[in-house]
Amino acid sequence: MEVLKQRILKDGHVLEDNILKVDSFLNHQIDPHLAFDIGKEFYNRFKDTKVDKILTIETSGIAFALCAGYFFNVPIIFAKKHNGANMSTDVYQNNVHSYTKNIDYTISLSKQFLHSGDNLLIIDDFLAKGQAVLGLMDIANQANANVSGVGIVIEKAFQSGSEILRNLGVRLESLAVIESLNNNKIIFREAF
Amino acid sequence: MEVLKQRILKDGHVLEDNILKVDSFLNHQIDPHLAFDIGKEFYNRFKDTKVDKILTIETSGIAFALCAGYFFNVPIIFAKKHNGANMSTDVYQNNVHSYTKNIDYTISLSKQFLHSGDNLLIIDDFLAKGQAVLGLMDIANQANANVSGVGIVIEKAFQSGSEILRNLGVRLESLAVIESLNNNKIIFREAF
Repeated sequence: MEVLKQRILKDGHVLEDNILKVDSFLNHQIDPHLAFDIGKEFYNRFKDTKVDKILTIETSGIAFALCAGYFFNVPIIFAKKHNGANMSTDVYQNNVHSYTKNIDYTISLSKQFLHSGDNLLIIDDFLAKGQAVLGLMDIANQANANVSGVGIVIEKAFQSGSEILRNLGVRLESLAVIESLNNNKIIFREAF
Repeated sequence: MEVLKQRILKDGHVLEDNILKVDSFLNHQIDPHLAFDIGKEFYNRFKDTKVDKILTIETSGIAFALCAGYFFNVPIIFAKKHNGANMSTDVYQNNVHSYTKNIDYTISLSKQFLHSGDNLLIIDDFLAKGQAVLGLMDIANQANANVSGVGIVIEKAFQSGSEILRNLGVRLESLAVIESLNNNKIIFREAF
């Protein structure tokens, strides 16, 4: 997605440890029109598949899932990282390890909003080692729902997540694929 | 906002302790087209004011802030409830008490995204005792930014938040104003 890649080059920053900081336009501060273009691009890439609901994880996935849901005209659901006091105890749960933050956390989704046979498009902002997406896929599996595909805004192709997902036979579409962040330089993978 | 009120009557549930559960269409599961209509309504109500940025708080405010930001064509920024490992330590911070969950939490916003003189529209999903909005207003104040207004999706008029904000001279616009949840019945305040 050319407009996204250009924006990453313009406003993204590479930190040590292969971290790409995009929080001036995708996280923390979000450009709503870019988020919309991203949602529309996910729609264009997955419109040939069955999508009943968009599934994401708080916080950073919500904006892009919402915009994709707008074009698919389906509800979005997001897994929570902490059990809120208001939430039903009747939830699907899974433990996820974050390599970025080096913590484990629980994700949960109310059973009320995910049913057997639902066709899900999973959307998230980043794909690195794939732990969050695998956690969401496990929740889909618990519900006996079908994962039609996984849409990622920025894939770090030099980490293991994309290979793990493709080996599982998942249809993965990433809007910007980063080949390398070595020497603080952002190198995209060209069309493949 | 009539379509919102009708949806609350249709899909909202009243729990004990004056809790209104709307997580099948506004939180946890979100109807993207309703979120868009909400964003557009905020735009219509505040389009006469100066708005450079939309400010909200994770998680539930993000969808509505994003949609409002789309119509205002300005960035959105959201305060985080926990310091992420990736985030700069150079942040505005405030402590907020949640009466619903009976916990205190820290909200923080990178100084990078909020500047002196910025005109902010604060948006959140619920207004009860006003703690989250007051926390955001304090962060705006730390940055010497101006709060042009506060837009709320659902105001619980029987709790103290709206009175506190109006006494502070804040321009408050709530899209659905709930007068009472007594006896598990949702009573809206009529036009006022």
